Amino acid sequence: MKKLEDYVINIPDFPKPGIIFRDITSILRDPEGLKLSVHELMHCLEGTEFDVVVGAESRGFLFGMPLAYNKSKGFVPVRKKGKLPRETVSREYALEYGTAEIEIHKEDIRPGQRVVFVDDLLATGGTAKAAIDLIEQLGGVVVKVLFVMELQGLHGRDALKGYDVEAVITYPGK
Amino acid sequence: MKKLEDYVINIPDFPKPGIIFRDITSILRDPEGLKLSVHELMHCLEGTEFDVVVGAESRGFLFGMPLAYNKSKGFVPVRKKGKLPRETVSREYALEYGTAEIEIHKEDIRPGQRVVFVDDLLATGGTAKAAIDLIEQLGGVVVKVLFVMELQGLHGRDALKGYDVEAVITYPGK
Repeated sequence: MKKLEDYVINIPDFPKPGIIFRDITSILRDPEGLKLSVHELMHCLEGTEFDVVVGAESRGFLFGMPLAYNKSKGFVPVRKKGKLPRETVSREYALEYGTAEIEIHKEDIRPGQRVVFVDDLLATGGTAKAAIDLIEQLGGVVVKVLFVMELQGLHGRDALKGYDVEAVITYPGK
Repeated sequence: MKKLEDYVINIPDFPKPGIIFRDITSILRDPEGLKLSVHELMHCLEGTEFDVVVGAESRGFLFGMPLAYNKSKGFVPVRKKGKLPRETVSREYALEYGTAEIEIHKEDIRPGQRVVFVDDLLATGGTAKAAIDLIEQLGGVVVKVLFVMELQGLHGRDALKGYDVEAVITYPGK
């Protein structure tokens, strides 16, 4: 039986020389790959009690929604600054070059809610940490931080110490 | 029982004065709203034979994935220029001010594949038409064009003449 990593196409030198891009779209174009990705993520959530799924724009949307649907939970997006129409809280964080700013609707996470954060890729952990900070600012409790893939060589778990971090596929490099 | 439109929060003057923004995130934060949105979209697909779901970045990702999952199909994203790592075809289209360019992976739509295109909102139809052009350029056959909401006053259906267009919620205005 094919494993999830068998669906991933590796693209050398994208988006720039020296980077191997792990393409999740090659998982999703295949009905079996798509189903397996959702099932593997759900498997990671077995035994976790939670109230809501938060996913980061835009590849976190891809995985967050089927998880929320299957677990009968709500979904709350974290988006780049300026795209959410209601009152938000926002956070700026460092990228390799420059900064990014993300935000979340203020009233969509309530104090004490148990939150699963999901994204496609754990690299440096910058986006996930900023999203977690926003969730906690609103009183949410992050009970699981879930990724389809992890690039261990970028040490993203160091930015997420103290959280229950899981990834379906782990690559040793960057 | 609540209808899908009951979950939509209407935000006046976003993103600019005179526009009423119809917020789909207020559907999704509620487990019942989320489930209902997916079920209503699936209902629109009853009797439609298709092979793959195409969804547009980024709110089309939210609805395309649970549809593809539930119907045991693949999902192929249409993204803004520069984000897809493999070989693409791309198309520029007019916005109110300026232009946008979207693309799709060339090998992810095969000739003769029956495609459902999904997005959150039918406004002028510009993005949907550009996406359909890309799908057809690759030999795909668009069998359904599906939206959660339609703003009839913007006449998006005029841009999509000849296609089977459906929307779950229809607003008469802009």
